[in-house]
Amino acid sequence: MPRYKLTLEYDGGPFMGWQRQDHGPSVQGSLERAATKLNGSSVEVHGAGRTDSGVHALGQVAHLDLDKDLPTDTVRDAINQHLRPEPIAVLSCEAVDESFHARHSATKRHYIYRMIDRRPPLTLDKGKIWRVTQKLDVDVMHAAAQCLVGTHDFSTFRDIQCQAKSPVKTLEKIAVRRVADEVELTCSAISFLHRQVRSITGSLVEIGRGKWAPEDMKAALEARDRAACGPVAPADGLYLERVDY
Amino acid sequence: MPRYKLTLEYDGGPFMGWQRQDHGPSVQGSLERAATKLNGSSVEVHGAGRTDSGVHALGQVAHLDLDKDLPTDTVRDAINQHLRPEPIAVLSCEAVDESFHARHSATKRHYIYRMIDRRPPLTLDKGKIWRVTQKLDVDVMHAAAQCLVGTHDFSTFRDIQCQAKSPVKTLEKIAVRRVADEVELTCSAISFLHRQVRSITGSLVEIGRGKWAPEDMKAALEARDRAACGPVAPADGLYLERVDY
Repeated sequence: MPRYKLTLEYDGGPFMGWQRQDHGPSVQGSLERAATKLNGSSVEVHGAGRTDSGVHALGQVAHLDLDKDLPTDTVRDAINQHLRPEPIAVLSCEAVDESFHARHSATKRHYIYRMIDRRPPLTLDKGKIWRVTQKLDVDVMHAAAQCLVGTHDFSTFRDIQCQAKSPVKTLEKIAVRRVADEVELTCSAISFLHRQVRSITGSLVEIGRGKWAPEDMKAALEARDRAACGPVAPADGLYLERVDY
Repeated sequence: MPRYKLTLEYDGGPFMGWQRQDHGPSVQGSLERAATKLNGSSVEVHGAGRTDSGVHALGQVAHLDLDKDLPTDTVRDAINQHLRPEPIAVLSCEAVDESFHARHSATKRHYIYRMIDRRPPLTLDKGKIWRVTQKLDVDVMHAAAQCLVGTHDFSTFRDIQCQAKSPVKTLEKIAVRRVADEVELTCSAISFLHRQVRSITGSLVEIGRGKWAPEDMKAALEARDRAACGPVAPADGLYLERVDY
């Protein structure tokens, strides 16, 4: 059976998350329905990362097997056609070897978290960015985040419902910078714990708004205790940017 | 009566345009209702430009008179509060002299038109950008646009319902460039005709996708005939970026 790798963009707003659900809309469910219409018989879609309810993607990756060989542009356009009008798009489609697995073959995942520090409410970017009403000190946030780089027990920044076997993860890179009037956090790792990026972002914002001292980040990490985490940042601002293989 | 200058951001999607309407939602109408709640008695809001149905603003400017002197931050926050949950935000508020008039005092208006040239449908930017399914040659579009700079009879690029006394306008600057995976047209003038930017953009896209020759832009301008205009670009991609005084 020919295998295809899909690169996906979606607005997570209307979905309960990536993962197929019995009780509500999911990105995986919508993709499987669209691919099944193309294929004629049932298709399973495997994603690189299970994005949470409301989390967006600029470059999620998934794979699926079809019954017959089709040109990759046909697969892309046909799935997009069957997805309408849902806010999910196949950006590109590539034929891959059957040893390729969207989740298991991934070597790195990159996330972006978008924030804006202003009092006026959001209009054009509603649901797409986190509005923080106090001014953020971006340089202090960036510096404070660097203690997280490397291999650590991230229990503090792990949702209580996280199903990973171990709380130990290796954060390869984290950066906070101002981009025009926005504040952008970017981070990369082989894999992340459930709500790790939003937990880290929420804690860094406490530092950026001056509620936590810069050194509180290291103390929170070393506590290895969920109770030491700051308020978890909302899903709105989080984007799965890219997956490397 | 103290006068205030407001800088406004809005998502034009849900509105029939800037101008107050009897038969549907308008940005001006929503602002007047919000300002009237703050003021206690009826308030009129005057805008720098009458954006069309579906057209967005990053920096529209308006002025209004209130019965009593209030701190500018109070005016901004109170109007924003009364506007909820409509996608209109007062970004800033400034006390101005009563000689200031948002429309008459404006010395320049700046617009941005956002396009993306890709086959996959839009997800996160639906309604906020024009998707063109063919690749656009941005350099050719930019070069072809330059014949519009200066003072011309813009009858070709003027909506038949335009109420301006003369079709002669002075286009100060127009540029087309690629910004990441988007194509951005920016243009500036003292004032514009009705649908002038969307008419110009639609014609330039005919050149960018190779349907028109580059010299067809000059021919269209010189025809001074609405029938010589290309298909008018949709409202989705147009933003009133800034107004100078």
